[in-house]
Amino acid sequence: MRSDIEAASKRIAGYVRETPVIHLESGFRGVDARVIVKLEQLQHTGSFKPRGAFNRILSNEVPAAGVIAASGGNHGVAVAYVARQLGYRAEIFVPEVCPTVKVQRLRSYGAEVTIVGASYAEALLASQARAAETGALVVHAYDQPEIVAGQGTLGREFARQEPELDTVLLAVGGGGLIAGVAAWFAGEARVIGVEPESAPTLASALKAGKPIDVEVGGVAVDSLGARRAGGLAFSLAQQYVERVVPVSDGSIRAAQRALWDDLRIIAEPGGATAIAALLSGAYRPAPAERVGVVVCGGNADLSQLLER
Amino acid sequence: MRSDIEAASKRIAGYVRETPVIHLESGFRGVDARVIVKLEQLQHTGSFKPRGAFNRILSNEVPAAGVIAASGGNHGVAVAYVARQLGYRAEIFVPEVCPTVKVQRLRSYGAEVTIVGASYAEALLASQARAAETGALVVHAYDQPEIVAGQGTLGREFARQEPELDTVLLAVGGGGLIAGVAAWFAGEARVIGVEPESAPTLASALKAGKPIDVEVGGVAVDSLGARRAGGLAFSLAQQYVERVVPVSDGSIRAAQRALWDDLRIIAEPGGATAIAALLSGAYRPAPAERVGVVVCGGNADLSQLLER
Repeated sequence: MRSDIEAASKRIAGYVRETPVIHLESGFRGVDARVIVKLEQLQHTGSFKPRGAFNRILSNEVPAAGVIAASGGNHGVAVAYVARQLGYRAEIFVPEVCPTVKVQRLRSYGAEVTIVGASYAEALLASQARAAETGALVVHAYDQPEIVAGQGTLGREFARQEPELDTVLLAVGGGGLIAGVAAWFAGEARVIGVEPESAPTLASALKAGKPIDVEVGGVAVDSLGARRAGGLAFSLAQQYVERVVPVSDGSIRAAQRALWDDLRIIAEPGGATAIAALLSGAYRPAPAERVGVVVCGGNADLSQLLER
Repeated sequence: MRSDIEAASKRIAGYVRETPVIHLESGFRGVDARVIVKLEQLQHTGSFKPRGAFNRILSNEVPAAGVIAASGGNHGVAVAYVARQLGYRAEIFVPEVCPTVKVQRLRSYGAEVTIVGASYAEALLASQARAAETGALVVHAYDQPEIVAGQGTLGREFARQEPELDTVLLAVGGGGLIAGVAAWFAGEARVIGVEPESAPTLASALKAGKPIDVEVGGVAVDSLGARRAGGLAFSLAQQYVERVVPVSDGSIRAAQRALWDDLRIIAEPGGATAIAALLSGAYRPAPAERVGVVVCGGNADLSQLLER
């Protein structure tokens, strides 16, 4: 996997931003470790998703039908963005519950948006049927090797910026990001997943010994609400992720607020989930531990941050 | 001055954050140069001001009366923050027009706030009278050597992060930041000031050959609305600043919007003013020019960013 991530890094260089890190002062909000935050919300489209999407699309022949994905969230926007950058058609399938503002955003990137089905699962099925018909390249949100390797480039980049990380904290949705990053570190740093209590996708899979369907909800459901972990993500997580800690919706909201109040960082709920584990004490580092934390998305609703 | 900035860097290390930089992709919003953005809005209190305030306060004996400043804006908050960190009393004088939310913010840092006078100038006079009475250490917003040297540490830090900058673009208020940064570069990079058309403080001074009073207004008036450039700032600017370019309020608003849309960065109007010069074409770099741009403040009103 490491060599796949190396190859992905070369492939997507120039297309994605190297996102910077900032060291927090010791004692930040009562956390005594040495905390280094990777500001991946500064990535194109406001999340890490273009890493995987670029790698998937650049690794394959793209037919005239272009690329296709199902997602009204960060993945869909990333696929639309990547397709536009590379000059391909993009079809994005979203369920009927997808907010109009997200549909408009997808269209602003030039994507053709199909609104279908009551749930993400239904939109995904419809997109698969359509792909079978057109031959478009399917870009999955997390369950394809090129996607996992692409997200893994974040781990490689972080390790180069901070060669002595003891621990890396990452939010988990379907598992693509944590699988790629954990595969990169491969035990050289402790990789800890953080999930909302209301979307325990990877924790449940690890407990069951295989990916299983879980109920998902809560404040981060739009970005971390995958109902079932990816197969590849699961097996890499089983091998390389030390454990998954749960955080409450309240801790996630508090972390969003802390990032804004003390760092002028806007993180969406899923983007604040990893640091929520530190600030809430769900993960308690040792005093001199060097803890890397990824802010993986900044697509927050600003109006929500205005509410105190 | 360079040795003062070196000394200031040592003095304030551990108290201020080293703020990261991000490289923009070539062609970002039509700008063909190599643009490197320094994310100083991630500094404590959301602006560069603690650099100068820490340096001023750490350079002097602080009497029991503590420190005193006049400002309802970023400087006042920085002085309140620094005083709290160092365990000193802080008195902050603000004019009656200061919004309640800013007064509350100052008080949240433990400062004693005195609301007096119709304008900043009147509040400043009252603070000076009070300082004469109590002996508190006066911390000026820009016109003291330790303040200028403290703000200059931003230039030193940027130069270490990016040793090959051709040009540095900085927003100008009273001139403390640009004076310190320009003194650091001392001709090794071209330093360009950017001012709102509606607050041409340094441009007017350079034209007149000395600091003069100007009318100030516009969207960035809360952070860049100094009516007269500082004396030391002026003389350093005369020596080391290549020129000052004006930008419209509309360009500043557009730059704030671009920073949010394309980078998920929140900048206040004054914080977006330097990059506004690039995005509006007020400053046109050569194609391979390495242009450093400082986002110097993030204390934006989020509700304003919601308005399209």
